[in-house]
Amino acid sequence: METNSTREARSAYYEQLAARGLSPLWESLHSLVPKEPRPQAVAAIWKYARIRDLIMQAGTLISAEEAIRRVLVLENPGLGGKASITSTLYAGLQLILPGEIAPSHRHTQSALRFIVEGRGAWTAVNGERTTMHPGDFIITPSWTWHDHGNPSVEEGGEPVVWLDGLDIPLIASLNAGFAENYPRATQPIARPEGDSFARFGHNMVPVRHRVDDPSSPVFSYPYDRSREALDILHRNGELDEWDGVKLRYVNPATGGWPMPTIATFMQLLPAGFSGRPYRSTDATVYCVVEGQGSVRIGDTSFAFEPHDVFVVPAWQQASLTASTESVLFSYSDRPVMSALNLLREERQ
Amino acid sequence: METNSTREARSAYYEQLAARGLSPLWESLHSLVPKEPRPQAVAAIWKYARIRDLIMQAGTLISAEEAIRRVLVLENPGLGGKASITSTLYAGLQLILPGEIAPSHRHTQSALRFIVEGRGAWTAVNGERTTMHPGDFIITPSWTWHDHGNPSVEEGGEPVVWLDGLDIPLIASLNAGFAENYPRATQPIARPEGDSFARFGHNMVPVRHRVDDPSSPVFSYPYDRSREALDILHRNGELDEWDGVKLRYVNPATGGWPMPTIATFMQLLPAGFSGRPYRSTDATVYCVVEGQGSVRIGDTSFAFEPHDVFVVPAWQQASLTASTESVLFSYSDRPVMSALNLLREERQ
Amino acid sequence: METNSTREARSAYYEQLAARGLSPLWESLHSLVPKEPRPQAVAAIWKYARIRDLIMQAGTLISAEEAIRRVLVLENPGLGGKASITSTLYAGLQLILPGEIAPSHRHTQSALRFIVEGRGAWTAVNGERTTMHPGDFIITPSWTWHDHGNPSVEEGGEPVVWLDGLDIPLIASLNAGFAENYPRATQPIARPEGDSFARFGHNMVPVRHRVDDPSSPVFSYPYDRSREALDILHRNGELDEWDGVKLRYVNPATGGWPMPTIATFMQLLPAGFSGRPYRSTDATVYCVVEGQGSVRIGDTSFAFEPHDVFVVPAWQQASLTASTESVLFSYSDRPVMSALNLLREERQ
Amino acid sequence: METNSTREARSAYYEQLAARGLSPLWESLHSLVPKEPRPQAVAAIWKYARIRDLIMQAGTLISAEEAIRRVLVLENPGLGGKASITSTLYAGLQLILPGEIAPSHRHTQSALRFIVEGRGAWTAVNGERTTMHPGDFIITPSWTWHDHGNPSVEEGGEPVVWLDGLDIPLIASLNAGFAENYPRATQPIARPEGDSFARFGHNMVPVRHRVDDPSSPVFSYPYDRSREALDILHRNGELDEWDGVKLRYVNPATGGWPMPTIATFMQLLPAGFSGRPYRSTDATVYCVVEGQGSVRIGDTSFAFEPHDVFVVPAWQQASLTASTESVLFSYSDRPVMSALNLLREERQ
Repeated sequence: METNSTREARSAYYEQLAARGLSPLWESLHSLVPKEPRPQAVAAIWKYARIRDLIMQAGTLISAEEAIRRVLVLENPGLGGKASITSTLYAGLQLILPGEIAPSHRHTQSALRFIVEGRGAWTAVNGERTTMHPGDFIITPSWTWHDHGNPSVEEGGEPVVWLDGLDIPLIASLNAGFAENYPRATQPIARPEGDSFARFGHNMVPVRHRVDDPSSPVFSYPYDRSREALDILHRNGELDEWDGVKLRYVNPATGGWPMPTIATFMQLLPAGFSGRPYRSTDATVYCVVEGQGSVRIGDTSFAFEPHDVFVVPAWQQASLTASTESVLFSYSDRPVMSALNLLREERQ
Repeated sequence: METNSTREARSAYYEQLAARGLSPLWESLHSLVPKEPRPQAVAAIWKYARIRDLIMQAGTLISAEEAIRRVLVLENPGLGGKASITSTLYAGLQLILPGEIAPSHRHTQSALRFIVEGRGAWTAVNGERTTMHPGDFIITPSWTWHDHGNPSVEEGGEPVVWLDGLDIPLIASLNAGFAENYPRATQPIARPEGDSFARFGHNMVPVRHRVDDPSSPVFSYPYDRSREALDILHRNGELDEWDGVKLRYVNPATGGWPMPTIATFMQLLPAGFSGRPYRSTDATVYCVVEGQGSVRIGDTSFAFEPHDVFVVPAWQQASLTASTESVLFSYSDRPVMSALNLLREERQ
Repeated sequence: METNSTREARSAYYEQLAARGLSPLWESLHSLVPKEPRPQAVAAIWKYARIRDLIMQAGTLISAEEAIRRVLVLENPGLGGKASITSTLYAGLQLILPGEIAPSHRHTQSALRFIVEGRGAWTAVNGERTTMHPGDFIITPSWTWHDHGNPSVEEGGEPVVWLDGLDIPLIASLNAGFAENYPRATQPIARPEGDSFARFGHNMVPVRHRVDDPSSPVFSYPYDRSREALDILHRNGELDEWDGVKLRYVNPATGGWPMPTIATFMQLLPAGFSGRPYRSTDATVYCVVEGQGSVRIGDTSFAFEPHDVFVVPAWQQASLTASTESVLFSYSDRPVMSALNLLREERQ
Repeated sequence: METNSTREARSAYYEQLAARGLSPLWESLHSLVPKEPRPQAVAAIWKYARIRDLIMQAGTLISAEEAIRRVLVLENPGLGGKASITSTLYAGLQLILPGEIAPSHRHTQSALRFIVEGRGAWTAVNGERTTMHPGDFIITPSWTWHDHGNPSVEEGGEPVVWLDGLDIPLIASLNAGFAENYPRATQPIARPEGDSFARFGHNMVPVRHRVDDPSSPVFSYPYDRSREALDILHRNGELDEWDGVKLRYVNPATGGWPMPTIATFMQLLPAGFSGRPYRSTDATVYCVVEGQGSVRIGDTSFAFEPHDVFVVPAWQQASLTASTESVLFSYSDRPVMSALNLLREERQ
């Protein structure tokens, strides 16, 4: 039992500790080693209908060149000021207008681009361009040069918006961030569009290819193919009570994740689907591609429509419901959890 | 120096050894531990034009049902009586006529089917059928139930011939062969055609898939996609001085070989290509899909045409030449060499 | 160029953004994606001579039972209030007095114990006890039950102090912390001391052992063996210009790190050794076992003596100098960097 | 049903086939794809008491230098003339007399040496010597220079006999054998004895070590340590009904097998132990270190004593019985079975 005199003695002692760079573990043990995860991030949704005008308005307030990346960051209300959507992940909506270029750079942060609306803009990665269409999943892996651009209006360019997903908060907490600008706005193009996909995308790889990078050499996963796969499995009767029909994107040269820190998924929920609750230690960001429905996260429910983005924090129970056939893209920090043996899942 | 008396003493001694299950290493060391590989297998070609009639004749001499597998084995002249094309691999040409069934069984030998001529026959593997077209590469992995069939003439069936590639000699030398017949001629069909490909073929895999088998869950690699990949890379200027444009098939769930004992490849040689010499410790069986050309193996040369099968024994130098644009399928025991750290290659 | 009216327009716009959970990336891009790591943690040393009295005093202010763990946390001055020595690692000095028990619990945080002074106390992990001696490196891996104890004075017990190294900040930032108390103060003992070491410590493992946990099944690495290995290599003339003679501890069942998030090392610096500068993305905590010397970290230098603890933050250049033959134990978050492909090193 | 005319037609057809390098699979399918393994190798024992005189006699008939390796090969009676003890493995007893040298060479075959009697001879591998004692397990991995020698009588040399275990038949069937003689009888010595063990044997490895060879960097596993581990586990009550107390040797830098083609084991059978029957697809060669007992293999039984060597062919049921406490060393081709997914086991 702590008496007054004990309290005083301890208090004096604690001051001495602080003066020598020490602190008493017993005063903070419970918060340092919690019974279960208590993320600061909270469940949240960004309704595209409510923010689209702000995205477009950004196009009039700042140029892509000045901004470097003209992006509105989706900040988790529980992580105010940290430019984070979960404790490890970042999400932003990027706008590129016809005729613009987002200049070339590289960084150790891994990045994904999921195309929300518009088509015809391009991303260049390691000397190859890929053209964007809604629903395409594109990666710009750690330390690869990448730039984005959009043809002029004359060439048929239109405004394109995509979701950026990065591991910025993770890399920050690991103190492992490096970045470099390319000396010119765009990197030189070394190979025709589609080259990487021809090399690695058809369940074949170049005979002398050696894996020395964990990131996928396929950097564009077109929506039409992902959608078709989901469709076939759905028609074949595949249906998980938690997930509907859910596939994860892979690096075809290893079978692993497309990038070492970010997992990505696409799932189809049939009309009328009502999924059972699930939680896991990886936190997940969803982007709605097609359909209407709702998600229940802990005690909160959100209705969703196409282009909405919502987040399920770590270890929060979530269940998905679809009123019309829905397709959801999602990304999470699962590869980190798996690599460090920290993945836990619970299905109910 | 070995004198007469030494010789006699040794000879008497050797008899004693033999009587007790022993032999003197020093009399055989050089042949047991050779300076370099001296395979008994020799370079050989089977010209399809010369054997096609015999294949078709088999169709009149024995039924698929009686034969179980109506196959003409390509026996390496250096390995007479061993039903082997190399010391580890087997090759055979299988014929299935309209209306026939090759009954269901399974074995620990891994098998590949490479379609030579005809279309519309099917292979069923683990509850799913795949329809054959020329140039398709199909696997029936170790210990998977598999059967083959062909629609009746009325249903549009036509004679179909494919190349069977198995690791029969390897498994025999390892004493690891097990086999079992299915109680009925055909296994039950559990999933529609294309299901496995939808699940694993599009650079995505089911979210809860766990790899517990090294063999590929994609068991059909259609020719049109492989051919298209080669074509694109060729147009993009890819050209290796030894191989032309060469891809290896992968298990998309692991990035590894489609089966743990057999590697498979497809390569395009542009018209006029004259490849440099290459050798390696894996022995390779080629099947010509398109084009005319020739192969030089050691001191021997063979002209090749579509459907011809030829074999390059281990550590024999080979170089490929194409007079018209050619496509070659090939398979080898490279995964064994790699797994056991025995792969050596030499390019000249 | 930003004019007054631009500034005002943007300012109004930013307010709108904030109201809808958005923020403009272009205002924070440079800090979010820095040119190179700028850790908040700073170089620091805890001189054992200056804090030993406070450690011992803790023994009179609180019992091990009340404290659960009677530990003084080494708080990095740059990470005030976070109970962290680097952004991913925790360090503390734990005292256990004769007759005391630190009660049994488990958590997903991985923990190491490096014995600083005193002998005869024990750690129990998964049903087996190990007795502590100065310089021993002991692990209590993620989610293993563990408790500590010390024989009574009558039984020869003496105060024992060890350095605790955990990945508490990492697990917190990943929201992956789970913890549980054992229903009794000590877990039941299932195997005699030394059993795990006999099973796994002699370059042999049980014939049916399957690796299903990345953490080492050897949980005690005695100092006498580590010291002997360093000694032999030193006598054999091994000497790296940066590291002296440096070994890393391994999980002998995998060749990997003892635990999936923490690397551990021991190195010998000969008398007169003056190491060249080195930096890397993993941050490292050192504990001096033997010898006198100094460490230069960035622009700061610290003299070190036995039992001192110092920290080299991520990407800070460090060089080690020894006036007398010195032995240093160290731990870092290198396995995290390696697993996520974020390890960078620079030797000068 | 095969009638006379069918028979004749087929017979004529078969001749045509043979002339074109073809054979009918249906005549050999059952033997090519057997229901279960039918190894040609048979169970056999070499009683050391019956062959020791022949080993010693070899010392008078041929010098180590002339023989290169003075070895009596243990030829499996079922594999006459093939210098093989199983279809993949070789076994021989090598004698080296005081003052002799077995000259340096290297080959792709992996080799193990298990010391049977005598002490003080040495094996040099990659620039380091190791001294032999009975029960030591020593490896000379694929393509490593190795030579053996024995001090003169004046220096205390005595005849030393060891069991050689190699993968000669496997490498022959894979056509992957390369060999080379060192220009001098002995390779230069680069490191003191014990260096590799200090570097890798103590559950630590050099900090910058990269695994680029699957073979163990520890090349001597001394008997006293293996024996002690078995002893401790036996005292701790460990006892498997099939194996007694059985450990496998590991490569401590990977947790894998010491060499990529040969597994090695040591097991202790308590006095009175009567093991249950077991079989597996790997074939195993045993060498008795201590004790008396018997082994039942299929329908055959052999009594064993120290230094006896016996072989259990693939998929033959074996059970071990010990009348006095016994220690058995064994080696098998299990790594090959595991790597190629061909390992099957059956316990009864």
